[in-house]
Amino acid sequence: MEKISIIKIGGNIIDNEVHLASFLSAYAAVEGKKILIHGGGKLATKMAADLNIPQQMVDGRRITDAATLKIVTMVYAGYINKNIVAALQSKKMHALGICGADANIVRAHKRIHANTDYGFVGDIDAVDTEKIVQLLEAGLSLVMAPITHDGAGQLLNTNADTMAQAIATALSSKYEVSLVYSFERKGVLSSIADGNSVIPIINPENYASLKASGQVNEGMIPKLDNAFEALQKGVTRVIIGDALDIDQLIAGKSGTTIQKN
Amino acid sequence: MEKISIIKIGGNIIDNEVHLASFLSAYAAVEGKKILIHGGGKLATKMAADLNIPQQMVDGRRITDAATLKIVTMVYAGYINKNIVAALQSKKMHALGICGADANIVRAHKRIHANTDYGFVGDIDAVDTEKIVQLLEAGLSLVMAPITHDGAGQLLNTNADTMAQAIATALSSKYEVSLVYSFERKGVLSSIADGNSVIPIINPENYASLKASGQVNEGMIPKLDNAFEALQKGVTRVIIGDALDIDQLIAGKSGTTIQKN
Repeated sequence: MEKISIIKIGGNIIDNEVHLASFLSAYAAVEGKKILIHGGGKLATKMAADLNIPQQMVDGRRITDAATLKIVTMVYAGYINKNIVAALQSKKMHALGICGADANIVRAHKRIHANTDYGFVGDIDAVDTEKIVQLLEAGLSLVMAPITHDGAGQLLNTNADTMAQAIATALSSKYEVSLVYSFERKGVLSSIADGNSVIPIINPENYASLKASGQVNEGMIPKLDNAFEALQKGVTRVIIGDALDIDQLIAGKSGTTIQKN
Repeated sequence: MEKISIIKIGGNIIDNEVHLASFLSAYAAVEGKKILIHGGGKLATKMAADLNIPQQMVDGRRITDAATLKIVTMVYAGYINKNIVAALQSKKMHALGICGADANIVRAHKRIHANTDYGFVGDIDAVDTEKIVQLLEAGLSLVMAPITHDGAGQLLNTNADTMAQAIATALSSKYEVSLVYSFERKGVLSSIADGNSVIPIINPENYASLKASGQVNEGMIPKLDNAFEALQKGVTRVIIGDALDIDQLIAGKSGTTIQKN
Protein backbone atom coordinates (compact mmCIF):
# COMPACT_ATOMS: atom_id res chain seq x y z
CA MET A 1 0.00 0.00 0.00
CA GLU A 2 1.20 3.49 -0.83
CA LYS A 3 1.86 5.75 2.16
CA ILE A 4 0.18 9.05 2.90
CA SER A 5 0.67 11.55 5.72
CA ILE A 6 -2.31 13.49 7.05
CA ILE A 7 -0.89 16.42 8.97
CA LYS A 8 -2.86 18.68 11.26
CA ILE A 9 -1.14 21.94 12.11
CA GLY A 10 -2.08 23.62 15.36
CA GLY A 11 -3.20 27.16 16.02
CA ASN A 12 -0.14 28.51 17.78
CA ILE A 13 2.04 27.74 14.76
CA ILE A 14 -0.38 29.53 12.43
CA ASP A 15 -0.40 32.57 14.74
CA ASN A 16 3.37 32.97 14.43
CA GLU A 17 4.46 34.08 10.94
CA VAL A 18 8.06 32.97 11.36
CA HIS A 19 7.09 29.56 12.72
CA LEU A 20 4.48 29.08 10.00
CA ALA A 21 6.99 29.91 7.24
CA SER A 22 9.49 27.52 8.79
CA PHE A 23 6.88 24.74 9.05
CA LEU A 24 5.76 25.23 5.44
CA SER A 25 9.34 25.01 4.15
CA ALA A 26 9.84 21.71 5.94
CA TYR A 27 6.37 20.49 4.95
CA ALA A 28 7.00 21.20 1.26
CA ALA A 29 10.10 19.01 1.47
CA VAL A 30 8.23 16.02 2.96
CA GLU A 31 8.21 13.25 0.35
CA GLY A 32 5.19 11.33 -0.83
CA LYS A 33 1.49 12.04 -0.72
CA LYS A 34 0.29 14.38 2.00
CA ILE A 35 -2.69 16.41 3.13
CA LEU A 36 -2.42 19.44 5.40
CA ILE A 37 -5.33 20.35 7.68
CA HIS A 38 -5.18 23.67 9.47
CA GLY A 39 -7.28 25.52 12.00
CA GLY A 40 -7.23 29.22 12.48
CA GLY A 41 -5.60 29.88 15.80
CA LYS A 42 -6.22 33.24 17.39
CA LEU A 43 -6.87 35.02 14.09
CA ALA A 44 -10.59 34.23 14.17
CA THR A 45 -10.82 35.40 17.78
CA LYS A 46 -8.96 38.60 16.89
CA MET A 47 -11.19 39.21 13.87
CA ALA A 48 -14.30 38.74 16.04
CA ALA A 49 -12.92 41.29 18.52
CA ASP A 50 -12.13 43.75 15.69
CA LEU A 51 -15.71 43.37 14.45
CA ASN A 52 -17.17 43.61 17.98
CA ILE A 53 -18.74 40.17 17.74
CA PRO A 54 -18.77 38.59 21.22
CA GLN A 55 -17.44 35.02 21.36
CA GLN A 56 -18.84 32.38 23.67
CA MET A 57 -16.85 29.29 24.61
CA VAL A 58 -18.30 26.14 26.22
CA ASP A 59 -15.78 23.49 27.37
CA GLY A 60 -13.13 24.97 25.11
CA ARG A 61 -15.39 24.87 22.04
CA ARG A 62 -16.44 28.00 20.22
CA ILE A 63 -20.19 28.55 19.99
CA THR A 64 -20.68 29.32 16.31
CA ASP A 65 -23.50 31.79 15.74
CA ALA A 66 -24.13 33.11 12.21
CA ALA A 67 -21.72 36.04 12.61
CA THR A 68 -19.01 33.72 13.94
CA LEU A 69 -19.55 31.23 11.12
CA LYS A 70 -18.96 34.08 8.67
CA ILE A 71 -15.71 34.93 10.47
CA VAL A 72 -14.33 31.38 10.59
CA THR A 73 -15.28 30.84 6.94
CA MET A 74 -13.45 34.03 5.96
CA VAL A 75 -10.42 33.46 8.17
CA TYR A 76 -9.95 29.68 7.84
CA ALA A 77 -11.13 28.96 4.28
CA GLY A 78 -10.09 32.35 2.90
CA TYR A 79 -7.18 34.14 4.51
CA ILE A 80 -5.22 31.29 6.11
CA ASN A 81 -5.97 28.65 3.47
CA LYS A 82 -4.95 30.83 0.51
CA ASN A 83 -1.83 32.21 2.19
CA ILE A 84 -0.66 28.66 2.95
CA VAL A 85 -1.40 27.62 -0.65
CA ALA A 86 0.56 30.59 -2.08
CA ALA A 87 3.50 29.83 0.23
CA LEU A 88 3.55 26.13 -0.77
CA GLN A 89 3.20 27.00 -4.47
CA SER A 90 6.30 29.20 -4.13
CA LYS A 91 8.11 26.02 -3.04
CA LYS A 92 6.85 24.23 -6.17
CA MET A 93 4.26 22.16 -4.34
CA HIS A 94 1.04 21.60 -6.29
CA ALA A 95 -1.14 22.77 -3.43
CA LEU A 96 -4.92 22.97 -3.79
CA GLY A 97 -6.73 24.75 -0.97
CA ILE A 98 -10.25 23.60 -0.19
CA CYS A 99 -12.71 23.16 2.63
CA GLY A 100 -15.00 20.22 3.36
CA ALA A 101 -17.82 21.68 1.26
CA ASP A 102 -15.68 21.65 -1.89
CA ALA A 103 -16.40 18.65 -4.09
CA ASN A 104 -18.62 17.49 -1.20
CA ILE A 105 -15.51 16.05 0.41
CA VAL A 106 -16.69 16.28 4.04
CA ARG A 107 -20.39 16.26 4.81
CA ALA A 108 -21.59 16.97 8.34
CA HIS A 109 -24.71 17.75 10.34
CA LYS A 110 -25.38 20.58 12.77
CA ARG A 111 -24.50 19.33 16.23
CA ILE A 112 -27.43 18.18 18.32
CA HIS A 113 -26.76 18.46 22.04
CA ALA A 114 -29.11 18.06 24.98
CA ASN A 115 -27.93 21.07 26.96
CA THR A 116 -25.93 23.35 24.69
CA ASP A 117 -26.76 24.94 21.36
CA TYR A 118 -23.36 24.99 19.67
CA GLY A 119 -24.80 26.91 16.71
CA PHE A 120 -23.32 26.14 13.29
CA VAL A 121 -20.93 23.46 14.50
CA GLY A 122 -20.72 20.41 12.26
CA ASP A 123 -20.23 16.79 13.30
CA ILE A 124 -18.94 14.72 10.40
CA ASP A 125 -21.19 12.19 8.63
CA ALA A 126 -19.23 11.24 5.52
CA VAL A 127 -15.91 11.71 3.74
CA ASP A 128 -15.78 11.23 -0.05
CA THR A 129 -12.70 9.02 -0.24
CA GLU A 130 -12.93 8.53 -4.02
CA LYS A 131 -12.92 12.29 -4.68
CA ILE A 132 -9.90 12.84 -2.42
CA VAL A 133 -8.05 9.98 -4.12
CA GLN A 134 -8.91 11.45 -7.53
CA LEU A 135 -7.42 14.83 -6.58
CA LEU A 136 -4.32 13.22 -5.05
CA GLU A 137 -3.82 11.04 -8.14
CA ALA A 138 -4.03 14.22 -10.25
CA GLY A 139 -0.82 15.25 -8.46
CA LEU A 140 -2.51 17.78 -6.17
CA SER A 141 -1.65 18.14 -2.50
CA LEU A 142 -4.70 19.19 -0.50
CA VAL A 143 -4.65 22.00 2.05
CA MET A 144 -7.89 21.83 4.00
CA ALA A 145 -9.74 24.33 6.14
CA PRO A 146 -12.06 22.78 8.75
CA ILE A 147 -15.29 24.17 7.33
CA THR A 148 -17.79 21.51 6.25
CA HIS A 149 -21.37 21.58 4.92
CA ASP A 150 -24.61 19.72 5.46
CA GLY A 151 -25.45 19.08 1.79
CA ALA A 152 -28.45 21.41 2.06
CA GLY A 153 -26.51 24.64 1.57
CA GLN A 154 -25.38 25.26 5.14
CA LEU A 155 -21.69 25.69 5.94
CA LEU A 156 -20.59 24.34 9.33
CA ASN A 157 -17.61 24.90 11.60
CA THR A 158 -15.85 21.60 12.37
CA ASN A 159 -13.03 20.87 14.78
CA ALA A 160 -9.80 20.51 12.78
CA ASP A 161 -8.50 17.58 14.88
CA THR A 162 -11.72 15.68 14.24
CA MET A 163 -11.60 16.49 10.54
CA ALA A 164 -8.00 15.22 10.31
CA GLN A 165 -9.06 12.01 12.06
CA ALA A 166 -12.06 11.49 9.76
CA ILE A 167 -9.97 12.00 6.63
CA ALA A 168 -7.17 9.76 7.89
CA THR A 169 -9.70 7.04 8.71
CA ALA A 170 -11.44 7.30 5.35
CA LEU A 171 -8.15 7.11 3.44
CA SER A 172 -6.95 4.05 5.37
CA SER A 173 -8.92 1.86 2.94
CA LYS A 174 -6.61 3.06 0.10
CA TYR A 175 -3.32 4.01 1.74
CA GLU A 176 -1.07 3.25 4.69
CA VAL A 177 -1.94 6.35 6.72
CA SER A 178 0.16 8.28 9.22
CA LEU A 179 -1.89 10.84 11.11
CA VAL A 180 0.28 13.60 12.55
CA TYR A 181 -0.96 16.18 15.05
CA SER A 182 1.72 18.86 14.95
CA PHE A 183 1.73 21.80 17.32
CA GLU A 184 4.02 23.97 19.44
CA ARG A 185 5.16 21.25 21.86
CA LYS A 186 7.57 18.37 21.44
CA GLY A 187 4.89 15.75 22.07
CA VAL A 188 2.60 14.60 24.83
CA LEU A 189 4.32 15.78 27.99
CA SER A 190 4.34 14.01 31.35
CA SER A 191 4.84 17.39 33.02
CA ILE A 192 3.30 20.40 31.34
CA ALA A 193 5.97 22.63 32.95
CA ASP A 194 8.80 20.64 31.32
CA GLY A 195 8.76 20.99 27.52
CA ASN A 196 11.21 18.11 27.21
CA SER A 197 9.21 15.56 29.24
CA VAL A 198 7.93 13.82 26.11
CA ILE A 199 6.19 10.48 26.58
CA PRO A 200 7.60 8.56 23.59
CA ILE A 201 4.89 5.90 23.33
CA ILE A 202 1.29 5.81 24.49
CA ASN A 203 -0.71 2.61 24.16
CA PRO A 204 -4.07 1.62 25.68
CA GLU A 205 -2.30 0.16 28.70
CA ASN A 206 -0.21 3.14 29.83
CA TYR A 207 -2.89 5.61 28.65
CA ALA A 208 -5.22 4.45 31.43
CA SER A 209 -2.58 4.97 34.09
CA LEU A 210 -1.37 8.27 32.59
CA LYS A 211 -4.92 9.57 32.73
CA ALA A 212 -5.56 8.22 36.22
CA SER A 213 -2.38 9.81 37.60
CA GLY A 214 -3.23 13.14 35.95
CA GLN A 215 0.12 13.08 34.11
CA VAL A 216 -1.55 13.71 30.78
CA ASN A 217 -2.80 17.27 30.55
CA GLU A 218 -6.58 17.52 30.31
CA GLY A 219 -6.40 19.40 27.01
CA MET A 220 -4.60 16.43 25.42
CA ILE A 221 -7.32 13.90 26.24
CA PRO A 222 -9.68 14.63 23.31
CA LYS A 223 -6.66 14.49 20.95
CA LEU A 224 -5.57 11.13 22.38
CA ASP A 225 -9.10 9.73 22.32
CA ASN A 226 -9.26 10.79 18.65
CA ALA A 227 -5.93 9.09 18.05
CA PHE A 228 -7.02 5.76 19.51
CA GLU A 229 -10.27 5.92 17.58
CA ALA A 230 -8.32 6.51 14.34
CA LEU A 231 -6.10 3.48 15.06
CA GLN A 232 -9.16 1.32 15.73
CA LYS A 233 -10.57 2.40 12.38
CA GLY A 234 -7.54 1.50 10.30
CA VAL A 235 -4.99 4.32 10.56
CA THR A 236 -1.50 2.80 10.80
CA ARG A 237 0.10 5.30 13.17
CA VAL A 238 -0.67 8.50 15.01
CA ILE A 239 2.13 10.85 16.00
CA ILE A 240 1.89 13.98 18.14
CA GLY A 241 4.73 16.48 18.23
CA ASP A 242 6.57 19.61 17.23
CA ALA A 243 5.41 21.27 13.99
CA LEU A 244 8.90 22.72 13.57
CA ASP A 245 10.35 19.21 13.46
CA ILE A 246 7.90 17.81 10.91
CA ASP A 247 10.33 15.60 8.97
CA GLN A 248 11.58 13.88 12.13
CA LEU A 249 8.02 13.59 13.34
CA ILE A 250 6.78 11.83 10.20
CA ALA A 251 9.79 9.52 10.37
CA GLY A 252 8.73 8.62 13.93
CA LYS A 253 12.06 9.94 15.27
CA SER A 254 10.55 12.54 17.56
CA GLY A 255 7.27 13.24 19.33
CA THR A 256 4.83 10.83 20.89
CA THR A 257 3.68 7.78 18.94
CA ILE A 258 0.24 6.44 19.77
CA GLN A 259 0.02 2.69 19.38
CA LYS A 260 -2.93 0.39 19.07
CA ASN A 261 -1.49 -2.33 21.28
CA MET B 1 -15.16 20.49 -29.95
CA GLU B 2 -16.97 20.18 -26.65
CA LYS B 3 -18.65 23.33 -25.38
CA ILE B 4 -17.95 25.15 -22.14
CA SER B 5 -19.51 28.23 -20.57
CA ILE B 6 -17.36 30.61 -18.53
CA ILE B 7 -19.74 32.73 -16.51
CA LYS B 8 -18.81 35.87 -14.60
CA ILE B 9 -21.38 36.95 -12.04
CA GLY B 10 -21.46 40.63 -11.12
CA GLY B 11 -21.31 42.25 -7.72
CA ASN B 12 -24.89 43.51 -7.48
CA ILE B 13 -26.23 39.97 -7.80
CA ILE B 14 -23.91 38.71 -5.06
CA ASP B 15 -25.02 41.56 -2.77
CA ASN B 16 -28.66 40.46 -2.98
CA GLU B 17 -29.30 37.14 -1.23
CA VAL B 18 -32.57 36.45 -3.04
CA HIS B 19 -31.10 37.24 -6.46
CA LEU B 20 -28.00 35.17 -5.74
CA ALA B 21 -30.09 32.15 -4.69
CA SER B 22 -32.21 32.52 -7.82
CA PHE B 23 -29.12 32.79 -10.04
CA LEU B 24 -27.50 29.73 -8.44
CA SER B 25 -30.63 27.60 -8.96
CA ALA B 26 -30.67 28.49 -12.65
CA TYR B 27 -26.89 28.10 -12.91
CA ALA B 28 -26.98 24.61 -11.39
CA ALA B 29 -29.47 23.60 -14.10
CA VAL B 30 -27.27 24.81 -16.99
CA GLU B 31 -26.14 21.76 -18.91
CA GLY B 32 -22.60 20.91 -19.91
CA LYS B 33 -19.24 22.03 -18.59
CA LYS B 34 -19.14 25.40 -16.85
CA ILE B 35 -16.96 27.60 -14.69
CA LEU B 36 -18.32 30.34 -12.44
CA ILE B 37 -16.17 33.38 -11.65
CA HIS B 38 -17.40 35.75 -8.99
CA GLY B 39 -16.28 39.04 -7.51
CA GLY B 40 -17.31 40.27 -4.11
CA GLY B 41 -19.63 43.19 -4.65
CA LYS B 42 -20.06 45.56 -1.76
CA LEU B 43 -19.28 42.95 0.90
CA ALA B 44 -15.55 43.73 0.81
CA THR B 45 -16.27 47.47 1.03
CA LYS B 46 -18.61 46.87 3.96
CA MET B 47 -16.09 44.64 5.72
CA ALA B 48 -13.39 47.33 5.27
CA ALA B 49 -15.76 49.91 6.80
CA ASP B 50 -16.57 47.57 9.72
CA LEU B 51 -12.83 47.13 10.33
CA ASN B 52 -12.12 50.87 9.91
CA ILE B 53 -9.78 50.27 7.00
CA PRO B 54 -10.01 53.24 4.61
CA GLN B 55 -10.51 52.31 0.94
CA GLN B 56 -8.97 54.26 -1.90
CA MET B 57 -10.33 54.02 -5.44
CA VAL B 58 -8.50 55.22 -8.57
CA ASP B 59 -10.50 55.17 -11.84
CA GLY B 60 -12.97 52.72 -10.34
CA ARG B 61 -10.23 50.34 -9.24
CA ARG B 62 -9.62 49.50 -5.60
CA ILE B 63 -6.13 50.27 -4.36
CA THR B 64 -5.16 47.06 -2.59
CA ASP B 65 -2.94 47.70 0.41
CA ALA B 66 -1.99 44.79 2.71
CA ALA B 67 -5.05 45.24 4.94
CA THR B 68 -7.35 45.37 1.90
CA LEU B 69 -5.73 42.28 0.36
CA LYS B 70 -6.50 40.43 3.58
CA ILE B 71 -10.15 41.57 3.35
CA VAL B 72 -10.67 40.59 -0.30
CA THR B 73 -8.96 37.23 0.31
CA MET B 74 -11.29 36.56 3.25
CA VAL B 75 -14.46 37.82 1.59
CA TYR B 76 -13.95 36.60 -2.00
CA ALA B 77 -12.00 33.35 -1.54
CA GLY B 78 -13.55 32.53 1.84
CA TYR B 79 -17.05 33.75 2.59
CA ILE B 80 -18.54 34.20 -0.88
CA ASN B 81 -16.74 31.31 -2.56
CA LYS B 82 -17.67 28.74 0.08
CA ASN B 83 -21.27 29.89 0.39
CA ILE B 84 -21.70 29.59 -3.38
CA VAL B 85 -20.11 26.11 -3.31
CA ALA B 86 -22.41 24.95 -0.47
CA ALA B 87 -25.47 26.28 -2.33
CA LEU B 88 -24.46 24.53 -5.58
CA GLN B 89 -23.68 21.30 -3.74
CA SER B 90 -27.20 21.37 -2.29
CA LYS B 91 -28.40 21.29 -5.92
CA LYS B 92 -26.21 18.22 -6.58
CA MET B 93 -23.58 20.13 -8.55
CA HIS B 94 -20.01 18.90 -8.00
CA ALA B 95 -18.72 22.38 -7.24
CA LEU B 96 -15.09 22.96 -6.27
CA GLY B 97 -14.29 26.44 -4.99
CA ILE B 98 -10.80 27.74 -5.63
CA CYS B 99 -8.85 30.91 -6.33
CA GLY B 100 -6.13 31.49 -8.90
CA ALA B 101 -3.38 30.48 -6.45
CA ASP B 102 -4.84 26.98 -6.06
CA ALA B 103 -3.06 24.41 -8.20
CA ASN B 104 -1.19 27.43 -9.65
CA ILE B 105 -4.12 27.92 -12.00
CA VAL B 106 -3.72 31.69 -12.50
CA ARG B 107 -0.31 33.28 -12.06
CA ALA B 108 0.01 37.06 -12.08
CA HIS B 109 2.46 39.85 -11.29
CA LYS B 110 2.00 42.90 -9.11
CA ARG B 111 0.83 45.73 -11.36
CA ILE B 112 3.51 48.15 -12.42
CA HIS B 113 2.12 51.58 -13.27
CA ALA B 114 3.95 54.84 -13.99
CA ASN B 115 1.75 57.09 -11.84
CA THR B 116 -0.28 54.95 -9.46
CA ASP B 117 0.74 52.31 -6.93
CA TYR B 118 -2.21 49.93 -7.06
CA GLY B 119 -0.75 47.88 -4.24
CA PHE B 120 -1.34 44.13 -4.34
CA VAL B 121 -3.23 44.14 -7.64
CA GLY B 122 -2.32 41.31 -9.99
CA ASP B 123 -2.13 41.42 -13.78
CA ILE B 124 -2.35 37.92 -15.22
CA ASP B 125 0.69 36.22 -16.75
CA ALA B 126 -0.39 32.61 -17.22
CA VAL B 127 -3.33 30.26 -16.91
CA ASP B 128 -2.65 26.53 -16.41
CA THR B 129 -5.05 25.15 -19.02
CA GLU B 130 -4.04 21.53 -18.45
CA LYS B 131 -4.79 21.71 -14.73
CA ILE B 132 -8.23 23.25 -15.34
CA VAL B 133 -9.03 20.59 -17.94
CA GLN B 134 -7.91 17.88 -15.51
CA LEU B 135 -10.30 19.16 -12.81
CA LEU B 136 -13.17 19.53 -15.30
CA GLU B 137 -12.57 16.03 -16.66
CA ALA B 138 -12.74 14.76 -13.07
CA GLY B 139 -16.35 15.93 -13.12
CA LEU B 140 -15.75 19.03 -11.01
CA SER B 141 -17.32 22.38 -11.78
CA LEU B 142 -15.02 25.22 -10.75
CA VAL B 143 -16.19 28.22 -8.75
CA MET B 144 -13.40 30.80 -8.83
CA ALA B 145 -12.61 33.80 -6.66
CA PRO B 146 -10.50 36.48 -8.38
CA ILE B 147 -7.48 36.17 -6.12
CA THR B 148 -4.28 35.16 -7.91
CA HIS B 149 -0.64 34.77 -6.85
CA ASP B 150 2.81 35.62 -8.16
CA GLY B 151 4.41 32.20 -7.68
CA ALA B 152 6.69 33.64 -4.99
CA GLY B 153 4.17 33.41 -2.17
CA GLN B 154 2.30 36.67 -2.69
CA LEU B 155 -1.46 36.67 -3.16
CA LEU B 156 -2.82 39.35 -5.52
CA ASN B 157 -6.23 40.93 -6.11
CA THR B 158 -7.26 40.55 -9.76
CA ASN B 159 -10.24 42.00 -11.60
CA ALA B 160 -12.87 39.28 -12.00
CA ASP B 161 -13.81 40.35 -15.56
CA THR B 162 -10.18 40.09 -16.61
CA MET B 163 -9.82 36.73 -14.91
CA ALA B 164 -12.91 35.40 -16.71
CA GLN B 165 -11.49 36.61 -20.01
CA ALA B 166 -8.08 35.04 -19.37
CA ILE B 167 -9.60 31.68 -18.46
CA ALA B 168 -11.99 31.74 -21.42
CA THR B 169 -9.10 32.53 -23.76
CA ALA B 170 -6.88 29.80 -22.32
CA LEU B 171 -9.63 27.17 -22.60
CA SER B 172 -10.43 28.07 -26.22
CA SER B 173 -7.60 25.75 -27.31
CA LYS B 174 -9.56 22.79 -25.87
CA TYR B 175 -13.23 23.78 -26.00
CA GLU B 176 -15.74 25.89 -27.88
CA VAL B 177 -15.99 28.67 -25.31
CA SER B 178 -18.92 30.96 -24.49
CA LEU B 179 -17.88 33.80 -22.19
CA VAL B 180 -20.86 35.25 -20.34
CA TYR B 181 -20.74 38.45 -18.30
CA SER B 182 -23.90 38.32 -16.23
CA PHE B 183 -25.01 41.19 -14.04
CA GLU B 184 -28.11 43.13 -12.93
CA ARG B 185 -29.00 44.60 -16.37
CA LYS B 186 -30.56 42.99 -19.42
CA GLY B 187 -27.52 43.66 -21.58
CA VAL B 188 -25.56 46.56 -22.99
CA LEU B 189 -28.06 49.42 -22.99
CA SER B 190 -28.29 52.21 -25.55
CA SER B 191 -29.86 54.39 -22.88
CA ILE B 192 -28.78 53.82 -19.30
CA ALA B 193 -32.14 55.21 -18.10
CA ASP B 194 -34.07 52.57 -20.06
CA GLY B 195 -33.43 49.07 -18.73
CA ASN B 196 -35.03 47.56 -21.83
CA SER B 197 -32.90 49.41 -24.41
CA VAL B 198 -30.71 46.36 -25.00
CA ILE B 199 -28.37 46.51 -27.98
CA PRO B 200 -28.70 42.90 -29.27
CA ILE B 201 -25.47 42.75 -31.25
CA ILE B 202 -22.23 44.65 -30.99
CA ASN B 203 -19.52 44.14 -33.59
CA PRO B 204 -16.37 46.15 -34.30
CA GLU B 205 -18.26 48.27 -36.81
CA ASN B 206 -21.16 49.50 -34.65
CA TYR B 207 -18.95 49.55 -31.53
CA ALA B 208 -16.97 52.47 -32.92
CA SER B 209 -20.11 54.50 -33.59
CA LEU B 210 -21.75 53.49 -30.28
CA LYS B 211 -18.68 54.73 -28.46
CA ALA B 212 -18.40 57.91 -30.54
CA SER B 213 -22.07 58.82 -29.95
CA GLY B 214 -21.74 58.16 -26.22
CA GLN B 215 -24.57 55.61 -26.39
CA VAL B 216 -22.50 52.97 -24.62
CA ASN B 217 -22.08 53.82 -20.97
CA GLU B 218 -18.48 54.54 -20.01
CA GLY B 219 -18.48 51.77 -17.39
CA MET B 220 -19.21 49.20 -20.11
CA ILE B 221 -16.19 50.08 -22.25
CA PRO B 222 -13.57 48.02 -20.37
CA LYS B 223 -15.97 45.03 -20.42
CA LEU B 224 -16.51 45.40 -24.18
CA ASP B 225 -12.80 45.86 -24.85
CA ASN B 226 -12.20 42.66 -22.85
CA ALA B 227 -14.90 40.94 -24.92
CA PHE B 228 -13.35 41.87 -28.28
CA GLU B 229 -9.92 40.83 -27.03
CA ALA B 230 -11.33 37.44 -25.98
CA LEU B 231 -12.89 36.94 -29.43
CA GLN B 232 -9.59 37.83 -31.11
CA LYS B 233 -7.86 35.22 -28.95
CA GLY B 234 -10.19 32.34 -29.84
CA VAL B 235 -13.30 32.61 -27.66
CA THR B 236 -16.35 31.69 -29.79
CA ARG B 237 -18.90 34.10 -28.34
CA VAL B 238 -19.22 36.71 -25.63
CA ILE B 239 -22.63 37.49 -24.16
CA ILE B 240 -23.52 40.25 -21.70
CA GLY B 241 -26.83 40.23 -19.87
CA ASP B 242 -29.13 39.50 -16.97
CA ALA B 243 -27.82 37.07 -14.35
CA LEU B 244 -31.40 36.17 -13.49
CA ASP B 245 -31.94 34.96 -17.06
CA ILE B 246 -28.83 32.80 -17.28
CA ASP B 247 -30.28 29.92 -19.32
CA GLN B 248 -31.66 32.25 -22.02
CA LEU B 249 -28.41 34.18 -21.94
CA ILE B 250 -26.23 31.12 -22.58
CA ALA B 251 -28.60 30.09 -25.37
CA GLY B 252 -28.03 33.53 -26.94
CA LYS B 253 -31.77 34.28 -26.65
CA SER B 254 -31.36 37.36 -24.47
CA GLY B 255 -28.71 39.96 -23.69
CA THR B 256 -26.10 41.49 -25.94
CA THR B 257 -23.94 39.25 -28.10
CA ILE B 258 -20.51 40.58 -28.96
CA GLN B 259 -19.35 39.44 -32.39
CA LYS B 260 -15.94 39.35 -33.94
CA ASN B 261 -17.10 40.54 -37.38
